Amino acid sequence: MSPPISTTLSRTETLSLVCITGACVAILANAFQGDDKPLIVSLALSGLAFCASFALIRWLGPTFMKAGFKGVDLSKHHRKEIPECMGAVCAAVYLFAIIVFIPFVFYKDVVAATSGGGNRDVVLQVEHVQQGRFLHRFPHSKLSSYLSAIVSLHTIASLGLADDLFDIRWRHKFFIPAFAAIPLLVVYRVDFGVTSIVVPLQLQPYLGPLLDLGALYYVYMAGVAIFSPNSINILAGINGIEVAQSVVIAALLALNDALYLLTPYPHPATDSHLFSLSFLLPFLGVSLALLYHNWYPARVFVGDTYCYFAGMVFVVVSILGHFSKTLVLLLVPQIFNFVYSTPQLFGLVPCPRHRLPRFNARTGLLEPSVTAWAAERQPRAAVRWGLRVLGRVGLLRVVEDAEGRVVETSNFTLLNLWLVWRGPLSEERLAVELTAVQVLLGLAGLFVRHRLALVVFREDNWSIH
Amino acid sequence: MSPPISTTLSRTETLSLVCITGACVAILANAFQGDDKPLIVSLALSGLAFCASFALIRWLGPTFMKAGFKGVDLSKHHRKEIPECMGAVCAAVYLFAIIVFIPFVFYKDVVAATSGGGNRDVVLQVEHVQQGRFLHRFPHSKLSSYLSAIVSLHTIASLGLADDLFDIRWRHKFFIPAFAAIPLLVVYRVDFGVTSIVVPLQLQPYLGPLLDLGALYYVYMAGVAIFSPNSINILAGINGIEVAQSVVIAALLALNDALYLLTPYPHPATDSHLFSLSFLLPFLGVSLALLYHNWYPARVFVGDTYCYFAGMVFVVVSILGHFSKTLVLLLVPQIFNFVYSTPQLFGLVPCPRHRLPRFNARTGLLEPSVTAWAAERQPRAAVRWGLRVLGRVGLLRVVEDAEGRVVETSNFTLLNLWLVWRGPLSEERLAVELTAVQVLLGLAGLFVRHRLALVVFREDNWSIH
Repeated sequence: MSPPISTTLSRTETLSLVCITGACVAILANAFQGDDKPLIVSLALSGLAFCASFALIRWLGPTFMKAGFKGVDLSKHHRKEIPECMGAVCAAVYLFAIIVFIPFVFYKDVVAATSGGGNRDVVLQVEHVQQGRFLHRFPHSKLSSYLSAIVSLHTIASLGLADDLFDIRWRHKFFIPAFAAIPLLVVYRVDFGVTSIVVPLQLQPYLGPLLDLGALYYVYMAGVAIFSPNSINILAGINGIEVAQSVVIAALLALNDALYLLTPYPHPATDSHLFSLSFLLPFLGVSLALLYHNWYPARVFVGDTYCYFAGMVFVVVSILGHFSKTLVLLLVPQIFNFVYSTPQLFGLVPCPRHRLPRFNARTGLLEPSVTAWAAERQPRAAVRWGLRVLGRVGLLRVVEDAEGRVVETSNFTLLNLWLVWRGPLSEERLAVELTAVQVLLGLAGLFVRHRLALVVFREDNWSIH
Repeated sequence: MSPPISTTLSRTETLSLVCITGACVAILANAFQGDDKPLIVSLALSGLAFCASFALIRWLGPTFMKAGFKGVDLSKHHRKEIPECMGAVCAAVYLFAIIVFIPFVFYKDVVAATSGGGNRDVVLQVEHVQQGRFLHRFPHSKLSSYLSAIVSLHTIASLGLADDLFDIRWRHKFFIPAFAAIPLLVVYRVDFGVTSIVVPLQLQPYLGPLLDLGALYYVYMAGVAIFSPNSINILAGINGIEVAQSVVIAALLALNDALYLLTPYPHPATDSHLFSLSFLLPFLGVSLALLYHNWYPARVFVGDTYCYFAGMVFVVVSILGHFSKTLVLLLVPQIFNFVYSTPQLFGLVPCPRHRLPRFNARTGLLEPSVTAWAAERQPRAAVRWGLRVLGRVGLLRVVEDAEGRVVETSNFTLLNLWLVWRGPLSEERLAVELTAVQVLLGLAGLFVRHRLALVVFREDNWSIH
């Protein structure tokens, strides 16, 4: 019997958190004086969000378990119950941080609209705003986008929690993110209405420089909104993998934003990328705190709430920043995992309740989990042919008996495929390798995107934002 | 043993709901043609919200009970478990309706900003909005308020659910609504910044026509935000009372809004009262569906989620509509109940876990529940004096023994006090009488408010909205 999982902070942890908190509070206290530096403020708030999540995840464990949020880790020798659905804590802290951030984001605008400096001036002249004199200078449309993002994220968090509570059927919950995207799309419609995409130079002779997709663009955005959260939710099953992939994607999106901030001339898209950063940095804050607790050996589980929430954060920043194609490039492993899963998701191949890799208690390593084919329930001819082709090209482990009957096939997930390729691995090693894959493919995606961008943007600054 | 509670709709219920749904959908389908009538659209959406809540409350009972949301009705002969926290269903349906409502609310503005009529024109000309030509004509500040209201309501729903899940301590949960009010106050600060109140004519010689409360105004709004949800939450304990009082308050607020719409000249506050109606009507829709199920004998419990949510709906409309003083007038029974409760809330008198009226199984009637004072734990002199005074003026039932020791006192809630006054009542009768009190006091409050308004507004149209 291993010792019970600690639910208090160690002395070192407490000291570190207190130091970070102190530094962040000092930065925030200074933010209202002198120049307005939204990026610094955002970093400070992200630090606070990290500290709050870290402490709350530790403290709330027993509360969550008492309320029924608990689960057993199937890939461990011990069968200890640990808290489940801790992503809900992250989502709550994140939303709180994002809401508190509003006055900081718009502080510059309030001051600018009033030409004042110190606090007292602002208070006096905000009166003018109200009386209409400066009304049009305040970026209400930016505030609307910001709020619609919060509404969408709030909705996905609630729906994710409902899923964790009521265990909604796969068929139904697939569409959960679409509901959460409604506020975003509605406000996008009311507020921006940009439905045209930039056409690559090579296609411009045929399509013109801008292609207006009209209603199709909303279908496309809804598609991205449905795909992103679900794809993160199904690339799961070992400690840390859901959070690690989300952290990588968020970091790469933030890197992409940073590229725009570093350009010598203020790029027309600078504002929308600053906006995106202000959503990504706090997300990184809460996610890193969760990763610390969810990494192998996990002390907590993240729950569907976290996966949905993470996916929706990416959707929100990419839609409001009008760079959803970049997001798609960063989701290549998820897209592969989803496409690869379709035979089981769509019922061509039987799909067990859990497809996570099999834990070999003797070696302590993970091996591909398999679907067994009974002699009397063999695949149909077309499916059998497909399985063999996949087996031949190394995309599946197929075991056949002497008569050519399929005995078992590995389950159709990226985790199992990786184990087919690399042989049995420890749980931590598997998580590290897949995270590395996510990083490398993501960097490659950004490279592709900016090569293309150079080709496209040399022509003109379409700068839709 | 009474029969199990039905979780399906009867044929009559199904037919009625289908008819209402059909009618509402027809209205909505027509809304995009011809004139824009936001009030009609709001009514139709409220009808849909009623139908959806009604069916979902019925259907989701077993799901909620399986997830642990269940409770036993203490004031019944049978001790059957029924679903708890059904207010969460109402909150979810309400938020969904309010979000879907956004394009309808702002449809007129999009059309007006583009001078177009039919759908195709709008699609084309929304492009212009995006390119800045019409940007300033779109009421983004109205959209911001609308969205901030949604964020606040979403927050209170989540926090209420957290309370129902984790059973947060009374001391902590008292401040829950303050967190939920943050988005509202932040946006109010950024967007309106109106912190002055109209001074009654009689005080104007001393204070001037408008009194700027500055930061105090935010403290006042936060106070209202904390009070309203909590006060509804503590006026509870018998079937239907939480929902009935909320329905009465919402209906009276809607009546107050309607008064502004009926004035012969377009009153400067018309817009903000239309806005308020668009939040209140769907709330009435979902609440009536809940009331049907929660009224005596209750088939479901509403949970703290509902009480908080209801209270926050009132806060949102009254703050954004700048008529929070009217709200205070409608909360007179709640204010009385809170003030009356303070001896127990603040620990002067021992406070048992439940203070709901005592069910007398022999008569089937409710009687005041009591706090017993043991001979060795008598109240201190000052408290004893206070109890006697309250007993003398009929605000408490005090039982003393021959030596003048306090044996028992009725619990300090409006429900118990009413039973002290009126004698044992059936649960339904008690709910009816208290609802009637709420109606009468509310109507009196509105009368007072508009008498004062006539006096104040005769002078000038301050019209802060």
